[in-house]
Amino acid sequence: MRRGFKELKKLDEALAILMKKFGNKSFESEKLPLSEAIGRILAEDIISEIDVPAFDRAAVDGFALKSHETFSANPYNPAILKLKGIIYADSEIREISEGECMEISTGAPIPRGADAVVMIEDCELENGFVKVKRPVARFANVSLKGEDIKKGEIVVSKGKLLKYHHIGVLASIGVREVLVRRKPKIGIFSTGDELINYHEKLEVGKIVDSTRPMIIGALKEAGCEVIDRGIVKDDYNEILSAINDLSSSSDMIITIGGTSVGRKDLLPEIIEKYFSMLFHGMAIKPGKPTSAGIVNEKPLIMLPGYPVAALIGFEFVVLPLINIWTGRKRGKRRRIKAILSRRVPTTPGIRHFLRAKIRSIDGKFIADPIMITGAGLLSSITKADGLIIIREDLEGLEEGEEVEVELINDEENFP
Amino acid sequence: MRRGFKELKKLDEALAILMKKFGNKSFESEKLPLSEAIGRILAEDIISEIDVPAFDRAAVDGFALKSHETFSANPYNPAILKLKGIIYADSEIREISEGECMEISTGAPIPRGADAVVMIEDCELENGFVKVKRPVARFANVSLKGEDIKKGEIVVSKGKLLKYHHIGVLASIGVREVLVRRKPKIGIFSTGDELINYHEKLEVGKIVDSTRPMIIGALKEAGCEVIDRGIVKDDYNEILSAINDLSSSSDMIITIGGTSVGRKDLLPEIIEKYFSMLFHGMAIKPGKPTSAGIVNEKPLIMLPGYPVAALIGFEFVVLPLINIWTGRKRGKRRRIKAILSRRVPTTPGIRHFLRAKIRSIDGKFIADPIMITGAGLLSSITKADGLIIIREDLEGLEEGEEVEVELINDEENFP
Repeated sequence: MRRGFKELKKLDEALAILMKKFGNKSFESEKLPLSEAIGRILAEDIISEIDVPAFDRAAVDGFALKSHETFSANPYNPAILKLKGIIYADSEIREISEGECMEISTGAPIPRGADAVVMIEDCELENGFVKVKRPVARFANVSLKGEDIKKGEIVVSKGKLLKYHHIGVLASIGVREVLVRRKPKIGIFSTGDELINYHEKLEVGKIVDSTRPMIIGALKEAGCEVIDRGIVKDDYNEILSAINDLSSSSDMIITIGGTSVGRKDLLPEIIEKYFSMLFHGMAIKPGKPTSAGIVNEKPLIMLPGYPVAALIGFEFVVLPLINIWTGRKRGKRRRIKAILSRRVPTTPGIRHFLRAKIRSIDGKFIADPIMITGAGLLSSITKADGLIIIREDLEGLEEGEEVEVELINDEENFP
Repeated sequence: MRRGFKELKKLDEALAILMKKFGNKSFESEKLPLSEAIGRILAEDIISEIDVPAFDRAAVDGFALKSHETFSANPYNPAILKLKGIIYADSEIREISEGECMEISTGAPIPRGADAVVMIEDCELENGFVKVKRPVARFANVSLKGEDIKKGEIVVSKGKLLKYHHIGVLASIGVREVLVRRKPKIGIFSTGDELINYHEKLEVGKIVDSTRPMIIGALKEAGCEVIDRGIVKDDYNEILSAINDLSSSSDMIITIGGTSVGRKDLLPEIIEKYFSMLFHGMAIKPGKPTSAGIVNEKPLIMLPGYPVAALIGFEFVVLPLINIWTGRKRGKRRRIKAILSRRVPTTPGIRHFLRAKIRSIDGKFIADPIMITGAGLLSSITKADGLIIIREDLEGLEEGEEVEVELINDEENFP
């Protein structure tokens, strides 16, 4: 009979172990149409096959001219040029001679013979002639061929997380498909004879497996593909077979429940016997039963069955590793400072994640800790506005102390 | 011939106009399976039809007992109780009599006759008897029926943005489907005879419409449904017909291009003639041609054709309104302080969005402004690490000045 966790692993140590073992994992790549590549990591350098601009073009609306003809121009003695016509962005390349200029739209090709564009505001029109009232420097208001992106240049480098602004750049150089790192595949199951799926009928002695759909949602939001093995009975062979199945198809296995130290918690036993345990239990509250092992050289993270505990284990242990794999930095929530409305005692050596409600009084935020027993209590999630993280070296927080609160819910009320 | 913008609208004023007119728009609702509702706004109060816990249950692994039998217990004179058996989470409700206790797993139903659970650590086992070495208070380590969520209680309120942790709570009270606000539908088209789609072959005089796929990606990421009308020719009737089509099917229309003051920019003319203009041109750089009108009581936002200008117009004008509609607060990017490496002159009265590269020297961040002409230059997006926003009341920023930089690209390098 297992009566307790041997050694609770500190959060920083647990993360260091996981990052060292699995942080450098390599992923194959897959080709995607450009429009589907947002949020993915580029698996190739994208090299431009064209110059951008592809030709010298006007950077403003104005008149294309030979700059040397304006060198002595001023309001009293303007350069007077014959207006030869107009060039639009979709026009062919035209030509001007001495004494001539052409009206030109932003983006239109500079005519041969011209080397600058003067803005409309600096000119006057009179009987088909343009009076230029100031000198115009060579290449003024001209975007030169290749000035923006040169043919052969690396435009976006391998390893970059593609955001929507990259799509514009890649589209403009004619990229249709990109090679991206494939999504991490996460296998997941819950264990417990008492569990039923949330769409099944609740009976006495049964508990809805509410943690699994929540973690699946979180995984998808984090950019993962989920392989859901459902609820597995508290049976040695069934658990073993679920792990073996998922270990070949997944990059990581997440189990929910079966990690505490009750008699039926077979999971840690199985991991120790057939695979390898990295740590069993963590110095965090809630989330203490969070444990990790190695299966087929892949991480297997055991999350507690209770939703609040699982959430803490997921966000602070699983998500940092997944974010490394996907290149995202979603972990950082907005933080506010607040005054704690009552004393919160904590156990030294354990990192506490305290849920709190926030209210605003006279422009100051007050944090009311939600003090309820047990990680099982769901209402602490729905009622809380934020999390207060209490370090291992503290014995608690005092009433009136200023604390930092990570906002976990709708942030509308906190400017 | 339109030669300029009449009055450039300041960003704060433009936003105030849009928010006032369209910020309170109401959206119908739709039913979704719980697992698909993450990131959506709840359109109903969710009321629990059950008590959680559904029965009094153990909050820890331990022994269920009658608390009054332990009141004088201490290590030298423990209460000695006969161990009657074991109760798991999926067990039926059992019963104990005076002088008895039962081993109980976390989550298991408290037996009739018991009113508290003592933790394993506070006991000793001997020949089928449990020695309890300290007094146990009534209801200690017991989660009482309805303690967490009461039947009839509002669990998640209407208007809440559903995050993944809500899914756990809702699943646990047996909610299968939820009513959510439907996604905003955004109609979009680009105008310009010179434009081709990014998967078409580039020729002289043609420009890839790179802005539209970028904005479409951004809209989807922001939680919108996109109705893409593609590229519309610079033709009065074609533009008018695209607007009319989209005005019935969309909540907002976004047009790209055709908003500058060149001869072919028909869009503002059409809006003024057939619909109503809210503002034409903004005091922002890049993004000056960004304009807005009202079509069929819906906002029509005209973004410039150049990707960088469109991006600024999108992020600072369109996105704030969409975020109000979807309840998201994605706009806030991480900010760092950096020292400006060179002087940046700006025009007073215009809000400037300066792109900058960031490097780190001796633990300090240095911002190198990317000084290139024109909003057309794409490389300012790919090369920039961040945006520096320069307020309208400034005439520029000085070399050596400390500035706040919004990080726009992969944040990996900035701790």
